[in-house]
Amino acid sequence: MLYGIVAFPEKHVQDIANSWRRRHDPHYASIPAHLTLREAKEWSEEQLQHTVAHLEQVTSAMPPFTISLNRVSTFYPVSHVLYLALQDTTGMEKLQSAICSGPLTVASPKYVYTPHVTIGQELSADELHDLYGNLRMQSIDLLTKIDRIHLLYQTDNGSWTAYQSFLLRG
Amino acid sequence: MLYGIVAFPEKHVQDIANSWRRRHDPHYASIPAHLTLREAKEWSEEQLQHTVAHLEQVTSAMPPFTISLNRVSTFYPVSHVLYLALQDTTGMEKLQSAICSGPLTVASPKYVYTPHVTIGQELSADELHDLYGNLRMQSIDLLTKIDRIHLLYQTDNGSWTAYQSFLLRG
Repeated sequence: MLYGIVAFPEKHVQDIANSWRRRHDPHYASIPAHLTLREAKEWSEEQLQHTVAHLEQVTSAMPPFTISLNRVSTFYPVSHVLYLALQDTTGMEKLQSAICSGPLTVASPKYVYTPHVTIGQELSADELHDLYGNLRMQSIDLLTKIDRIHLLYQTDNGSWTAYQSFLLRG
Repeated sequence: MLYGIVAFPEKHVQDIANSWRRRHDPHYASIPAHLTLREAKEWSEEQLQHTVAHLEQVTSAMPPFTISLNRVSTFYPVSHVLYLALQDTTGMEKLQSAICSGPLTVASPKYVYTPHVTIGQELSADELHDLYGNLRMQSIDLLTKIDRIHLLYQTDNGSWTAYQSFLLRG
């Protein structure tokens, strides 16, 4: 089964992200607005059990923190993605690096981890530039606390279902 | 904020439910296939904290169990809903009654609690009868374990986001 690990921003951030996602993100209906902590990966039942134990342990030592989303940015030309970017990525980087250790180590990561909330993807270059041209000038000032993470699994229709939450208890 | 409490059946049941939900359930994209344990309710931050403490306590004493979904049934004429019905509703009834106690007591419930997985709703009477006529004859034999519940909240677009999971640890 395909599992992934995310943090959901608070509702007020999701509502704003959704106002763009609705039109510009084909995954809009498959998963709420989120910050990915570990990409989707096929795990056996045994790997799942190891992962749950690992996440219990890691989150027990991580304190909750707050992130500020302060602008729209893009991964263009690497990928045609628009996203809400973090003012300071330290907290999410620490969390991601603690999660992606031990049994969840990513052998050869394709990208440097850049925490973000996707608001558009699979856009044509023209769409992306138009939209980015408008949004990069907008003043964005969103705070959201990160006090838990969620382990999700994917159903055959591409949607994600919550499997288990882990509170940051450090 | 609007909160609800559900149990998700395992992936193989969701996949089958989705094959009908895709066409016959307008809430298909808002939430994965589920068994409602408590209807959506507006809670303050303080009520949320009480609820979380209550759910921690209730689930600590409830053992996991397995349910069998063995037929398609309908709430017609009370509501135009088609659902996967449980062979034996005892386990879910006990769980629901434990959850809906203390701070989560439902003052005057509109219906007798009937655990189910919705596969179609808001159907016209004609559609419902056509579909039910076909599906009631189908042999259905699905087992799924219920070993956790999920507290969800609704965003402005009508979709549900996972807030916290509670394992049945009794």
